[in-house]
Amino acid sequence: MTIKHITRLRCVKCYKNYTLEQQYTCLVCGLEGILDIEYDYELVRKTLNKTSLAERELNHWRYRELLPISESVVLPYLQVGWTPVYQSSKVAQIIDIKDIYIKDDGRNPTASFKDRASSVGVVKAIEQGAKIIACASTGNAASSLAGFSAAVGLKSIIFVPERAPEPKITQLLIFGATVIRVQGSYEDAWWFCQKACERWGWYNRNAAVNPYLVEGKKSAGLEIAEQMADKMPDWVVFSVGDGCTIAGAWKGILEMYKIGIISRLPRILGVQAIGASPIVKAFRSQTDLVISDAQTIADSICVGEPRNWRKAVKAIQDSNGEMIEVTDEEILEAMRLAARSAAVFGEPAGVAALAGLKRAREAGIVRAKESALVAITGNGLKDVQTARQAAGSPISLEPNMDKLEKILDEQHLL
Amino acid sequence: MTIKHITRLRCVKCYKNYTLEQQYTCLVCGLEGILDIEYDYELVRKTLNKTSLAERELNHWRYRELLPISESVVLPYLQVGWTPVYQSSKVAQIIDIKDIYIKDDGRNPTASFKDRASSVGVVKAIEQGAKIIACASTGNAASSLAGFSAAVGLKSIIFVPERAPEPKITQLLIFGATVIRVQGSYEDAWWFCQKACERWGWYNRNAAVNPYLVEGKKSAGLEIAEQMADKMPDWVVFSVGDGCTIAGAWKGILEMYKIGIISRLPRILGVQAIGASPIVKAFRSQTDLVISDAQTIADSICVGEPRNWRKAVKAIQDSNGEMIEVTDEEILEAMRLAARSAAVFGEPAGVAALAGLKRAREAGIVRAKESALVAITGNGLKDVQTARQAAGSPISLEPNMDKLEKILDEQHLL
Repeated sequence: MTIKHITRLRCVKCYKNYTLEQQYTCLVCGLEGILDIEYDYELVRKTLNKTSLAERELNHWRYRELLPISESVVLPYLQVGWTPVYQSSKVAQIIDIKDIYIKDDGRNPTASFKDRASSVGVVKAIEQGAKIIACASTGNAASSLAGFSAAVGLKSIIFVPERAPEPKITQLLIFGATVIRVQGSYEDAWWFCQKACERWGWYNRNAAVNPYLVEGKKSAGLEIAEQMADKMPDWVVFSVGDGCTIAGAWKGILEMYKIGIISRLPRILGVQAIGASPIVKAFRSQTDLVISDAQTIADSICVGEPRNWRKAVKAIQDSNGEMIEVTDEEILEAMRLAARSAAVFGEPAGVAALAGLKRAREAGIVRAKESALVAITGNGLKDVQTARQAAGSPISLEPNMDKLEKILDEQHLL
Repeated sequence: MTIKHITRLRCVKCYKNYTLEQQYTCLVCGLEGILDIEYDYELVRKTLNKTSLAERELNHWRYRELLPISESVVLPYLQVGWTPVYQSSKVAQIIDIKDIYIKDDGRNPTASFKDRASSVGVVKAIEQGAKIIACASTGNAASSLAGFSAAVGLKSIIFVPERAPEPKITQLLIFGATVIRVQGSYEDAWWFCQKACERWGWYNRNAAVNPYLVEGKKSAGLEIAEQMADKMPDWVVFSVGDGCTIAGAWKGILEMYKIGIISRLPRILGVQAIGASPIVKAFRSQTDLVISDAQTIADSICVGEPRNWRKAVKAIQDSNGEMIEVTDEEILEAMRLAARSAAVFGEPAGVAALAGLKRAREAGIVRAKESALVAITGNGLKDVQTARQAAGSPISLEPNMDKLEKILDEQHLL
């Protein structure tokens, strides 16, 4: 098959070229050889420009020329992308920065950023004639896959590790996914899924091996560019787990620069939790990644063996960006800050980006006269259990006005 | 104060007229005398019409002439309203109806329909110069109030009954609300809140006494009219708890008819849970409401003493509509149906509307050649605990390909 705007697929490790017939990774490098899709930007800009965008619907399919899908395919009806960007002077004041913008990607159909990738994933599966699509995940990738599979009538099979929390499993089952709870670790579930995909020819949604998925993630960057336009901030901040989200976002921003929608590029700030920061370490040491144990409350970025670290490091370097680590306490504080001062309730991995910006400002990496956009990649309702640690407690009281008055007085509410 | 498009406020019980100085209920009828706001539709249609709408932003402030807010007030920045409407041929086929449309109101900022009301509530509070806004609720009204208060910098104080579930309280606390857990029932919390509002002059967000709030809810009806336009379905279906949601939605649809945006009115189908259906009983018997105990898994419509039943009954009658009751089992089944066949994960009270449509179809109230729009009023992530009852169980398995093959074979997935 051919897609007219796509020139080739290229291995990020050995730079070998492939055509669109190649579904997953490089034949030489195996799982380490993730492919990157390249476009003909001269051709793209002929039809994707400010004039044409003004006429298009407000969802991420508006960037169709920059997505790896053929023209004839039917798109899922769920409204995905074009999530709101809010400017918050209150948060800017608190962290001492000129301007801050918050992009609430929890407003996607299944309440996370991952809908961008899964929406492209199901389209590719249909294009290939697949009836079943699979992934190994406990989190947002899985719930978005289950949701988008329901929308297009695909069967989804999702492999989760034994310890996956019940509320997350509920989100998969309610959309009709078949959920295999693998007696073992996340790695066990991942390999079991790989093998099953190979054996039965299911479409494999794992972004670590599938080059088309990250193109969906890219739409966050495409949107940031279009939404910010002449106000493009100095920094764009994402939390980092596996690495392909931040790589995708940067690719999207860069592409909008290439086709002339924006004239100035931001620097990328990548944020990891201190207990799960192998990419920060690889970025700083400029060496290969060292696999490590991972531990953080921010489960969506709790990754000790990230598969897309090369793409992530390269994206941040290309943007003249930086990386930073934050503690779990800082993540909980950022959850309060985002909700109380900007009215956006984000999940831990989502608000980790805000925590990172605050720390980067304190460290002088980001300066007071600069501006930043922070992407909150998932809704806080996804993980209310952790939010309870950040939220504090209610005041228990009998219905007595005098007692209420005393408490209000103590809290300076009278 | 005056708002140029508003002519008067009128008591729904004794029809006495008021001006905009009246903040809450009728002085003669007390809490039973809920006020209804009336507009000058000739004036409205001069500036609110298809031409002007085509130029406006896609949020519910696009209907500004039909909202009870002055022109000078600053609006909250959170993107509220203009939630997506999806047509689902699969659901239509399953329940044997010509066309079905699902409006996913869980896509609002705090993931429920109530954001429409709270967004207007905080604007009114600011207009009145209030610094504190309060309500008694455990549910979506409270979390949306907490969220919108955070957005505009108001202090919110929320009264919850002793037995309010922790996850719901978390949503309030994370947005910075002061939460008073009242040692007593919901009624105790409600009265305690009323007294505190009177004593300290806080702005009272309780939709049961505040006529401005229901105008925010109206925007769902305004949107349904604009989004469906020439395809207005035969039925519009809402679940019913207190009664003001369905009354608001009908008012909105009717207003769009009055100003010439639509030329055909739908019939309204109101759905209550069988364990909490005093409005259905009042509607059928054409008598006054009898207060009763309420019991259903759909907590957002678990109301035994609805305060807006008069508005609800009148709306349904005006539309030549119907009411129906559904069991908790039917609600759980509708949750599966909405998620698996339409990819919308709704909370129990949200999907109750779909359950009601299904039952109304079976009862012959709705016919096979008709069409319907169902409003899903809250996101399923709000109540994952109940969703677990509907979702089923995962398959626990050691990572062994032969065992997996056997299971896939049993499930006809090979």
